[in-house]
Amino acid sequence: MKYAVITIGREHGSGGRLLAQKIADALNIPLYDKKLIHMIASESGFSEKYVEQAETKHTSSFLYNLYFDSTNLPIDDQLFIAQSNVIKKAAAQSPCVIVGRCANYVLRKRTDCLNLFVYAPMEERIHRITEEYHEQVPNKDIHRYLEKYDKQRAAYYERFTGERWGDRHQYHLMINSTVGLDHIADHIMKLVKESDANA
Amino acid sequence: MKYAVITIGREHGSGGRLLAQKIADALNIPLYDKKLIHMIASESGFSEKYVEQAETKHTSSFLYNLYFDSTNLPIDDQLFIAQSNVIKKAAAQSPCVIVGRCANYVLRKRTDCLNLFVYAPMEERIHRITEEYHEQVPNKDIHRYLEKYDKQRAAYYERFTGERWGDRHQYHLMINSTVGLDHIADHIMKLVKESDANA
Repeated sequence: MKYAVITIGREHGSGGRLLAQKIADALNIPLYDKKLIHMIASESGFSEKYVEQAETKHTSSFLYNLYFDSTNLPIDDQLFIAQSNVIKKAAAQSPCVIVGRCANYVLRKRTDCLNLFVYAPMEERIHRITEEYHEQVPNKDIHRYLEKYDKQRAAYYERFTGERWGDRHQYHLMINSTVGLDHIADHIMKLVKESDANA
Repeated sequence: MKYAVITIGREHGSGGRLLAQKIADALNIPLYDKKLIHMIASESGFSEKYVEQAETKHTSSFLYNLYFDSTNLPIDDQLFIAQSNVIKKAAAQSPCVIVGRCANYVLRKRTDCLNLFVYAPMEERIHRITEEYHEQVPNKDIHRYLEKYDKQRAAYYERFTGERWGDRHQYHLMINSTVGLDHIADHIMKLVKESDANA
């Protein structure tokens, strides 16, 4: 099988998670998105909230450091290692779709990953966040909120991978979700199934 | 029709031109690639060689300036204007595929363009350039040659559009050609035909 694992990086509000769900459904394989957070929290002892925010909130909480700092590694690094182990284990179990968490980088030694990145124009992201996700963001600040979100994700990705977040050379396909998520999901499904047939 | 014109930006050696040919064949619409160079040369009076090299060789040749400088605009700007007019005319005539020349930017006011960008890992590009295009590049310098090529294309794009070449927000799909050109061509064909049916 050419592509067993599909990793999806995404801009917040781009529909990357929805695409991940559609692809997982179409291929009938597990999706690791929110579930990953739960698994990482159980495995590492970090709280789910802490794990969830790690991609966008760079923290070196004093209490966390006191509690976890048994290895002399910074807390963020410990979390990254724990989460990388969970991702590797999940990917080793069966074909799957993994959202975020630098999964493309974590699994870079496997040759059977299809790495996608989903993005969208700012106005589309704002529409999705407010109308579909119903996130509570003060309207006048939403532009700045998303720009900050991007910067934080980029900083996180760059810190742990040494590469630029959203740089094309990290991915097989970069998808502006305005072309249509159903269409893209269908395409990815065929790409994976075809690679399966040719394997 | 949602997408009448397909523009393709590309890294040299990525297979972008081959993809353009496959898409044009599949949709049975004209391809403007080398043909565009001929059209721009006839329209503007610049030589085909000068037009061809414009994307990668920033020149302000003294002789060209003497000969053409009737408008007080720098030669490169005059060429860009001439070439933009040719692109707009071609796109106005019928659905088509246009390779390079900042066509996505030139046609940015149209809402029916599907803008693609094709790239590939360095070793793939080197393989294609030497084995398929048979370009005469000294082997030991080919890496540097391609890096310089990229920089020149980026500088050209940025000079005339004010945007970053290869930045995802300029495109609908960015395609690593290692996923397979036939597969991608088939996908684009369906995307365009579907948009046609929904129009």
